Amino acid sequence: MPVDFIALANAGVQKLQPYQPGKPIEELERELGITDIVKLASNESPLGPSPRAMSAVRSVLEDIHRYPDGSGFRLKAALAERLGVRAAQITLGNGSNDVLELIARAWLKPGDEAVFSEHAFAVYPLVTLACSARPVAVPAREYGHDLDAMLDAIGERTRIVFVANPNNPTGTWISSSTLDHFLARVPKDVLVVLDEAYFEYVEESAYPDGMTRLAAHPNLVVTRTFSKIYGLSGLRMGYGVSSVDIADVLNRVRQPFNCNSLALAAAEAALDDADYLEYNRNLNTTGLAQVAEGLEQLNLEYIPSVGNFIAFDCGREAMPVYEALLREGVIVRPIAGYGMPNHLRVSIGLPEENERFLEALARVLG
Amino acid sequence: MPVDFIALANAGVQKLQPYQPGKPIEELERELGITDIVKLASNESPLGPSPRAMSAVRSVLEDIHRYPDGSGFRLKAALAERLGVRAAQITLGNGSNDVLELIARAWLKPGDEAVFSEHAFAVYPLVTLACSARPVAVPAREYGHDLDAMLDAIGERTRIVFVANPNNPTGTWISSSTLDHFLARVPKDVLVVLDEAYFEYVEESAYPDGMTRLAAHPNLVVTRTFSKIYGLSGLRMGYGVSSVDIADVLNRVRQPFNCNSLALAAAEAALDDADYLEYNRNLNTTGLAQVAEGLEQLNLEYIPSVGNFIAFDCGREAMPVYEALLREGVIVRPIAGYGMPNHLRVSIGLPEENERFLEALARVLG
Repeated sequence: MPVDFIALANAGVQKLQPYQPGKPIEELERELGITDIVKLASNESPLGPSPRAMSAVRSVLEDIHRYPDGSGFRLKAALAERLGVRAAQITLGNGSNDVLELIARAWLKPGDEAVFSEHAFAVYPLVTLACSARPVAVPAREYGHDLDAMLDAIGERTRIVFVANPNNPTGTWISSSTLDHFLARVPKDVLVVLDEAYFEYVEESAYPDGMTRLAAHPNLVVTRTFSKIYGLSGLRMGYGVSSVDIADVLNRVRQPFNCNSLALAAAEAALDDADYLEYNRNLNTTGLAQVAEGLEQLNLEYIPSVGNFIAFDCGREAMPVYEALLREGVIVRPIAGYGMPNHLRVSIGLPEENERFLEALARVLG
Repeated sequence: MPVDFIALANAGVQKLQPYQPGKPIEELERELGITDIVKLASNESPLGPSPRAMSAVRSVLEDIHRYPDGSGFRLKAALAERLGVRAAQITLGNGSNDVLELIARAWLKPGDEAVFSEHAFAVYPLVTLACSARPVAVPAREYGHDLDAMLDAIGERTRIVFVANPNNPTGTWISSSTLDHFLARVPKDVLVVLDEAYFEYVEESAYPDGMTRLAAHPNLVVTRTFSKIYGLSGLRMGYGVSSVDIADVLNRVRQPFNCNSLALAAAEAALDDADYLEYNRNLNTTGLAQVAEGLEQLNLEYIPSVGNFIAFDCGREAMPVYEALLREGVIVRPIAGYGMPNHLRVSIGLPEENERFLEALARVLG
């Protein structure tokens, strides 16, 4: 009888369900044989990559037979200057997903717990289970984090609390005062991972900058990414900022060459492209209003969002709506896996892409 | 008193010493202010990247604002055809380092053991310790794997045996008959990870192809990489081939977007560049002979190698020799961390780079 290596895998690993990514354009082309597809499924920048990043990639392309600089010296120096932190506080990751996973792997043992909110990013329970630790999902309040309930959920075995601000896929956000109230009450030996993947989109004045909380809270790790507003999803680059001690541990656990050379160069260049960032942010703000207005005209309820996406309620099971939109050449994101079977999440695209989505949705629903 | 997050990290994590990569050219420029540097420190292809791979990267560059195809559909299909396996048997990784780590994370719990050889790749103990499992290093025989002793070292708690063929940094290799004798005797519930990172360089007729052993050994995972002969170290792409069950587990543990878009495209193109591969292999074979002969003329003992590198004995502590070579603008690799304090490892470069190394070494030694 052959040995069952699935049954021999670690307990949490056996429970892992693969992450469901947004459908790639190429896959839809392959499956339905259609072209002229609009993908609004993965919260990507609709602008394409920053020209400065593209040009940085081209300039290092001839060196791809060389290993990357495993220390990420130049990018860390640029980030440190930009963020007003020390380079030794930074952990670079193969996307911020990598940093989230490193934190789990460094501090979660079998039997430990990680706390996060219902409807929060799917990667939090995944990285927790992969360590055979127990994911503790705390019921949301109006689709947003209930930080008081999350505080109550912290127990003896809790090592990590994940907080997404704003949260994906709901677009909800936490104010400065609410966050500070929470940070002051988390036990000091529990890590708070503040996931700010969508930080650069938010224009609310009461929205807090996690970096300014690091000095007062040595148990805080703030994560950000180049996959969203910086338009570099395909290259994989994210980072965490924390105390030097925490960064030291994460840098020991990470793979020696976890970040590729092109991503390092592109991120450094993108960081300098203030025009791209500004244009992208404005485009998003306009697009959020456009999509919200369109959804209202269709009499659909949506969750007000400060990210580059909106989750809306189809008023019925969302999966058939998603599939009908695919046949219209529009890819959005089903979020049943986030406990929201009647919602779909649509990323904000270019004005004409948003319009195409709204028109397709009207046809599909109507 | 502030909380000590280093002390709170998992037991094995606390013991991790960071991997010591080959010194990047840029770092040496920064530190010593010298230029015209020859790097023979990381077993990289001296040819630069395959032109087909470069062109593939350029062709997908405009899509880097899109997430990669997390399933790696096209590259897996190309590899499956090339290797005569099913796509479902393949796990793509962010370098083969990623695959080695995934295997450890899926099957090693605190207290478990992983067996490998003395002088073997530093990543085996690193990924083992990161899971708080126990690394068991088995004494080498003439710098090569002692597979009988490794069999004896397999105990109740052993979940994984790592076998490098050929081995880095020694360049030693295991014959077909020796490997088959070993595979037949490993307990069937213990995973054998056969690391073939340097597979494509080996020209010995008795050198075994691990892929042909998969059908008979459901506990076998063969790993290979695009970082060596394919010249794509900077992009990060490697893979594992195994039973479908093992690949299923690894694909659940991996990050959803562990491989970047440019690496996926470049690897697919490089796989088709038979001329580049052949030219690179021949260049290496000639270079191995050139360096071996040069070392003999300097009366230095070296370990016969089938890889793209040679480890040689300085006859004294190697670190000062390494540092003197740096001042000559030649970067090689100290391997004291591999239990070989008197050896240095030199990668095979272009003929003129090999010559430059040999001349610098002659000056340094004296």
